[in-house]
Amino acid sequence: MPEISEQQQNHQRLQQVNQALGSGMFVHVRKLLQNMPAYDIALILESSHPKSRAVLWQLIDADNHGEVLEELNEEVRKGILKTIRPEKLAEVAEGMDVDDLAEVLRTLPDSVYQEVLSAMDSQDRGRVEAALSFEEDTAGGIMNTDTITIRPDVTVDVVLRYLRLRGDLPEATDSFYVVDGKNHFIGAVSLAAIITAKPEVIISTLIDKDIEAIQAHLSESDVAQLFEKFDWFSAPVIDDKGRLLGRITIDDVIDIIREDAERSMMSMAGLDGEADTFAPVLKSTQQRSIWLGVNLITALLAVAVSSMFEGVLSQLAILAILNSLVPSMGGVAGNQTLTLVIRAIALGHVGDSNARILIQKELAVGFLNGVIWAVLIAGVVAIWQQNLMLGGVIAFAMLMNLTAAGIAGVAIPLFLKRINIDPALAGSVILTTITDVVGIFAFLGTATLFLT
Amino acid sequence: MPEISEQQQNHQRLQQVNQALGSGMFVHVRKLLQNMPAYDIALILESSHPKSRAVLWQLIDADNHGEVLEELNEEVRKGILKTIRPEKLAEVAEGMDVDDLAEVLRTLPDSVYQEVLSAMDSQDRGRVEAALSFEEDTAGGIMNTDTITIRPDVTVDVVLRYLRLRGDLPEATDSFYVVDGKNHFIGAVSLAAIITAKPEVIISTLIDKDIEAIQAHLSESDVAQLFEKFDWFSAPVIDDKGRLLGRITIDDVIDIIREDAERSMMSMAGLDGEADTFAPVLKSTQQRSIWLGVNLITALLAVAVSSMFEGVLSQLAILAILNSLVPSMGGVAGNQTLTLVIRAIALGHVGDSNARILIQKELAVGFLNGVIWAVLIAGVVAIWQQNLMLGGVIAFAMLMNLTAAGIAGVAIPLFLKRINIDPALAGSVILTTITDVVGIFAFLGTATLFLT
Repeated sequence: MPEISEQQQNHQRLQQVNQALGSGMFVHVRKLLQNMPAYDIALILESSHPKSRAVLWQLIDADNHGEVLEELNEEVRKGILKTIRPEKLAEVAEGMDVDDLAEVLRTLPDSVYQEVLSAMDSQDRGRVEAALSFEEDTAGGIMNTDTITIRPDVTVDVVLRYLRLRGDLPEATDSFYVVDGKNHFIGAVSLAAIITAKPEVIISTLIDKDIEAIQAHLSESDVAQLFEKFDWFSAPVIDDKGRLLGRITIDDVIDIIREDAERSMMSMAGLDGEADTFAPVLKSTQQRSIWLGVNLITALLAVAVSSMFEGVLSQLAILAILNSLVPSMGGVAGNQTLTLVIRAIALGHVGDSNARILIQKELAVGFLNGVIWAVLIAGVVAIWQQNLMLGGVIAFAMLMNLTAAGIAGVAIPLFLKRINIDPALAGSVILTTITDVVGIFAFLGTATLFLT
Repeated sequence: MPEISEQQQNHQRLQQVNQALGSGMFVHVRKLLQNMPAYDIALILESSHPKSRAVLWQLIDADNHGEVLEELNEEVRKGILKTIRPEKLAEVAEGMDVDDLAEVLRTLPDSVYQEVLSAMDSQDRGRVEAALSFEEDTAGGIMNTDTITIRPDVTVDVVLRYLRLRGDLPEATDSFYVVDGKNHFIGAVSLAAIITAKPEVIISTLIDKDIEAIQAHLSESDVAQLFEKFDWFSAPVIDDKGRLLGRITIDDVIDIIREDAERSMMSMAGLDGEADTFAPVLKSTQQRSIWLGVNLITALLAVAVSSMFEGVLSQLAILAILNSLVPSMGGVAGNQTLTLVIRAIALGHVGDSNARILIQKELAVGFLNGVIWAVLIAGVVAIWQQNLMLGGVIAFAMLMNLTAAGIAGVAIPLFLKRINIDPALAGSVILTTITDVVGIFAFLGTATLFLT
């Protein structure tokens, strides 16, 4: 039997649900959705037309609503939240993890938000309000509060007896946190250490020195880097007085990494990292038009530069025909450097101390590629047009522009990073403007000097 | 005291090492590197000029060489491996995880590879050869073999006594695997279940039904999706007869996710996902030139299309000036759609059953944006050039091209995916060719009809 991939299985599930939905077999859809993990249901919602989502949502078992909301992409979730009444939402909220619930509440309008909070029981409300008191993208904002704490002076045997009485551990528990009487964090003891230790061993001797506490205000990307650096599965979060507040688990870190990477890729096309694939047409049009508007301005700038050379363009139509070549190659070469540097910034490869090495390298690469393509294109043009001078002009422009592209590809993202603008978002547009303007100036300017 | 971010700390470390290296203080560099986690050392190597890397490598404590190799990006690692003699490499290999070691060995030339293998002790060699027998990008290729297995019919007490005797668990152990006498996988029991169970409980009653075994030949991206879907921290790997082979832990999954995301972003600029930021100039030039060559061909195609309209271009210089505008806007709009669809494919949002909805949506978005920018640009041009007809011509071309861009932005990646070509790699170049050709044809063609 040939096996099929996860992705093919996803599409089969999607197709089954769509077909059943299309033929109005709601009971069947409900049954299909009942046996699916929340992750798969979220995927189906994200892969559906916004109109179908509302219907599907009603057919999902109410007990699963919370988990599905947790898995959904932000924009799709917002759309669904709009259709849920606040009382209903408070019910859904009960089953959710504190960190995910806080994330959901942040996206709600103030009035709804207050209504949901007041409908919750006071213990849950307290925990959510604590999470909401931290910035969204910090350790405090993404932590959970379900930690197990133990005292340093008890024995392993005492802990084991306590755990057997308790009978169940919070999800994804791989260590317990040792605290003093005032809840100050002392250290972490792994489950593995407790399970392999002799019963009479004192807990304080088992503390794992590799696990450090994270400050609640640390940014989430710093949190992700610490997890990767130390191969943590979970880590404790403390306030600035060293008191234990909660813990972050690696599944949250995976979300951060995935979202960061998506945001970079989408930003480079002027899109929102969490954009809904099947967003309504009007909404998509509006979101895209900002970026198109910015591009129009830069394109008009290129037009303005060209128009300065109207004289030479009207004399020699071949210049008009070739005018796009140099800017195009410059744009591609510059974008390669830009992309490399944006990744390097994200990975932490470039800083003040080695930026110069990178500029020198990319300048050399741009120059060398400039020479290669200048020679090639000069040959093509000289033979095609039987005009050696024209070949020389375009070769010079190509060399200029690819060299400029190399410098701009490094300098622009580093500069944007320094003034706290996301290089992935604004870099490409600025770069293209530069390679367009330099390319046209170099080509038509040199042509004016040597061909007329 | 103002706190500094992880990234700033990284740069400070990098700067310290660079300064010490630059002034020849090798003993100091050695000392700095001694106190750093392998992750930080790898980051410093990746952030350094290739020439400095060889020097730094010599200054790293030999005991850390294996761990640092594990953390390094593939291209940088290859560069360093070239400088290590095979006997040395066999020593380094001893401390490495099987999955990482297999990855390293795969990148070596055959002769070196054999030499390293034969220098290893027979047990290690056996484990590595087992890992190497699976394809690189499959569950078998990324698994580790350090599992703890238990029998279904023993009690918790027996397991606990065994573990206390053992005294230590493999890194990142969160569950034990229950197997029969022939090593067939029966199920997983979490550490949490054992630690909270009464001593007399039989292991088979504690089996966690949420943890399924992964087939060794499953692709690594499918593995990553299963981990995300079920929130696993680790999962057992079995062969096609159901025998336990090893396990995959979530830190490997994070690497897969990060590498996949990086590959997508880098591919869109025609770069290798694992490209070395500080690669030597000649190597970089060579790597970039392929993509520039492809772009040159598509740019020459656009030139060829323009040259078909030499007559009208030589009559009206304004057409030459405006000729880049429509292709530019089409390229940007098309790339937005393309990026959205590439992400949608990666997330599993699009399949045969909903591709049509997406095409219809993007067609509508393209058309609508076409109308908006057509009207705007027509106004600008008509006023600037006092030529209503010219405004009409460019408006029509803009509308055509943005609509074509919307269709192409969906159709190209879906088609490439179907014929098993990475849409992130080839999509952008094909799309730009289409928006260039359609844009020029629509603009200059209509201009020929109505303006001459």
